[in-house]
Amino acid sequence: MLNKVKITLVKPIHPGNIGAVARAMKTMGLTKLALVAPQYFPSPTANAMASRATDILENAEVHKTLVEALATSQVIFGTSARSRIFEWPQLTLREAALSIAAEVEKGNQISLLFGTESTGLSNDELKHCHYHVYIPANPEFSSLNLAQAVQVASYELMMAFNTLQTPRTDTRILAPYENLERFYQHLQKIAYDVEFLKGPHGEVMMLKLRRLFQRAQMDDTEITTLRGILSNIERMLIKK
Amino acid sequence: MLNKVKITLVKPIHPGNIGAVARAMKTMGLTKLALVAPQYFPSPTANAMASRATDILENAEVHKTLVEALATSQVIFGTSARSRIFEWPQLTLREAALSIAAEVEKGNQISLLFGTESTGLSNDELKHCHYHVYIPANPEFSSLNLAQAVQVASYELMMAFNTLQTPRTDTRILAPYENLERFYQHLQKIAYDVEFLKGPHGEVMMLKLRRLFQRAQMDDTEITTLRGILSNIERMLIKK
Repeated sequence: MLNKVKITLVKPIHPGNIGAVARAMKTMGLTKLALVAPQYFPSPTANAMASRATDILENAEVHKTLVEALATSQVIFGTSARSRIFEWPQLTLREAALSIAAEVEKGNQISLLFGTESTGLSNDELKHCHYHVYIPANPEFSSLNLAQAVQVASYELMMAFNTLQTPRTDTRILAPYENLERFYQHLQKIAYDVEFLKGPHGEVMMLKLRRLFQRAQMDDTEITTLRGILSNIERMLIKK
Repeated sequence: MLNKVKITLVKPIHPGNIGAVARAMKTMGLTKLALVAPQYFPSPTANAMASRATDILENAEVHKTLVEALATSQVIFGTSARSRIFEWPQLTLREAALSIAAEVEKGNQISLLFGTESTGLSNDELKHCHYHVYIPANPEFSSLNLAQAVQVASYELMMAFNTLQTPRTDTRILAPYENLERFYQHLQKIAYDVEFLKGPHGEVMMLKLRRLFQRAQMDDTEITTLRGILSNIERMLIKK
């Protein structure tokens, strides 16, 4: 079950950290690692730091862009020091781990994102996430390094999967990221066509709409429905 | 409160680990470190690895023997890979953290022991402990290094102390029923206007759309946004 959770490192700089992350993951039974535009990979330093977890490095996915890495993910969690985009749904690590375990039980594929060392995920990267995840820490010294953060997260995930006993009844398979993204593009186009979005405020408004629809956790049928409405609107606007 | 918990490293070999432990502790608000017969201490390597947590190293107690280090402790917890002394009371890390928080609330001083790298606490050292603590991990690869183990333990301790005073931050006020209902009416009207809804299937389709938007738990601002889009669509359809 833990193999449905993909730890995704976005633009990691130091190969030693990638290795230490692999080791941290393996101690808690996680196996799937994805790297987005790593500075150096593969790397002997990464292998050395991975100790006996080099199998995770050998099987790691490497992607050029975050969008490519997320394509088949159904629920996306991004770690963030604190809420930087206004009021995005924010969970503590423990809440996130329980939520991830529940989503995996329903059959969904999860990505948990960690940003570049020291700067973390950018707002542009965070906007792809359904939830932002916050690792509670000392407010005066919250500098967990990348591997320490992944260690604590992997531990919480393992605990959540171990302790999960809740019987599930709903088995909704959520839409993959790429379909959701196409819906947002479509919605944005119509919103501009009808002059609801214009000028510099358009960007912020689209973020608000994303936040709303991310919460709804749509499946493919629902996206098809909404895009059906959008297509009809488009057609009617042209016809008249 | 967390300063009543003393992290005690028994015979640590590598000074870099002592520094990394100090850093891990500080990220979670722990401050008290004791060292029993460290191989090298103080050490520039320890300072370098501690990053901005050198204050913890400067204030660390250094003892010749474990017995001396434990003198004023009232409840002693020892980490152990698995129960090695027959049927000693054994707790998971999470249970131990809750138990430690409860003991501190009663006014007790706590020591949490970590053994030498790679071999851990000996049976002779474990016998001083009231409880043995087990960090759940991958049975096939449970090799957390010293700093990783202290990181996870410090995190659990901070979580346990935090849950004694649970603060919640999210206070989204959701839209009242009547506003949501007006949105559904508006959406339905547009869906008929653009001939997406027609005939007997319209009713079922509207139910599906309701279910989608109910899940999103919208607030009034979001409803205003969506109705703004719908109004613009309406206006454009009439104009053309």
